[in-house]
Amino acid sequence: MILIGERINAGFKDIGQAIRTHDPEPIRRWAREQTVCGADYLDLNIGAVSKNPADMAWLVEVVQETVPTPICVDSNHPEVLRAGLEAADGRPVIVNSTTAEDEKLEKILPLAVKYNAAIIGVAQDEQGSPQNVERRVELGAKIFMAAMEAGLTPDRIFLDPVLMPLRFMQDQALKVLEAIREYRILSDPPPHISVGLSNICSQTKERSLIARTFLVMAMAAGLDAAICNVLDPELRAAVATAELILNREIYSDDYLRVWSLKRVKGGA
Amino acid sequence: MILIGERINAGFKDIGQAIRTHDPEPIRRWAREQTVCGADYLDLNIGAVSKNPADMAWLVEVVQETVPTPICVDSNHPEVLRAGLEAADGRPVIVNSTTAEDEKLEKILPLAVKYNAAIIGVAQDEQGSPQNVERRVELGAKIFMAAMEAGLTPDRIFLDPVLMPLRFMQDQALKVLEAIREYRILSDPPPHISVGLSNICSQTKERSLIARTFLVMAMAAGLDAAICNVLDPELRAAVATAELILNREIYSDDYLRVWSLKRVKGGA
Repeated sequence: MILIGERINAGFKDIGQAIRTHDPEPIRRWAREQTVCGADYLDLNIGAVSKNPADMAWLVEVVQETVPTPICVDSNHPEVLRAGLEAADGRPVIVNSTTAEDEKLEKILPLAVKYNAAIIGVAQDEQGSPQNVERRVELGAKIFMAAMEAGLTPDRIFLDPVLMPLRFMQDQALKVLEAIREYRILSDPPPHISVGLSNICSQTKERSLIARTFLVMAMAAGLDAAICNVLDPELRAAVATAELILNREIYSDDYLRVWSLKRVKGGA
Repeated sequence: MILIGERINAGFKDIGQAIRTHDPEPIRRWAREQTVCGADYLDLNIGAVSKNPADMAWLVEVVQETVPTPICVDSNHPEVLRAGLEAADGRPVIVNSTTAEDEKLEKILPLAVKYNAAIIGVAQDEQGSPQNVERRVELGAKIFMAAMEAGLTPDRIFLDPVLMPLRFMQDQALKVLEAIREYRILSDPPPHISVGLSNICSQTKERSLIARTFLVMAMAAGLDAAICNVLDPELRAAVATAELILNREIYSDDYLRVWSLKRVKGGA
């Protein structure tokens, strides 16, 4: 399971402030904390406070000076993504994200190819977010084909079926589970499949319970990546247990501890 | 989700002793506790201490005097099952279980038909427990067809794909998840699908975590029943959350409390 730490995002007050003032300390702290918790990638998002490519370059540099963890540059703006990719020091990078819109695909796929990065493709387009399984499959397949044609192999393509808040769109979670199963059979080997996990528990009281329950259900359907709160020990325990059940880690009585040790040492 | 309380089983010391001495108090206590925790059925198993049909009849009567909860008469012996069915007072009953062996099916299916009960069919036969998906599907389909021919409708047929201890047969859990998906498409409407949940965490250190994680993964695959430890609050919270995600319960901030209240009042 590929866990992408969500915490270095300008939507959080401390990170927003740190980006505005170029204060590296809050960035470093969350980079370290998420790495120690086993994040495979750190999502880096300046979107809520800046559209300035130089701010993304600064953010990437601060993180790279602090931890060896791969990064996920996260923006709606191609020039911000490009600045993040240019600042990257050779460690694995994911570009987060393109949608299925032609204009987006034409701008962002060449960036992923040029900088040898992977890409997250979100199954939405100019008509907005998908409301059913068919749209998710249609838009996911469109992104997948465009990415393959651009020269990306399936292991560098992450499809995101668009997880929505359970509180406001309760019928969509089941459709996401079904879309995940469909994405799994798009190709052999399949693309990666990723969700923005915290969306599902937005404005709910039982955030951690809802997030981790959905996550293991989605893992049973074929999900293999998530942007999520890796700081949550119950989420990590649920992932470790699901990986055990899916026979991807060997059982021992201490499997939770072994899982944590392996992650912090070597990544997924 | 149909939750069958596992606790009134002679394999537990207090229940074994209560059956031996016909002491109703431990039986009553567990019948009440599991009912309050929302059990839809109470499994009643005298197997570890008695093969005497009169003991099963006594057990059924004690439970029926205590709670209105439906029961699941559990034995390998057709005469013990018959005694339980005869003692039943008209509340819903599940017969637990038949295997796919011809001799078993011939003896036990007519009992379920005669006493208007449902049946659990365990996907094993004289060759033992299944080791792969194909055997599980083959044996499950055999039971399903035999039960339909005997006159049971799909809603009275529970198929059990045979869950095994993760500690000793780690590769089998994934095969059970796949078999569940296959059972779901055996007919429309599909049969119920049930597991003996505590098998998976047998002799592990993280019993509750492993049980509840598997349970919600299996629910995502189509499981709709489990014989399990309904006393575990974290298991119940996981089930309530999975039902929310599968859009079978309506979201409210207090959904955990609502779920409990509904279960104790009315059953699933």
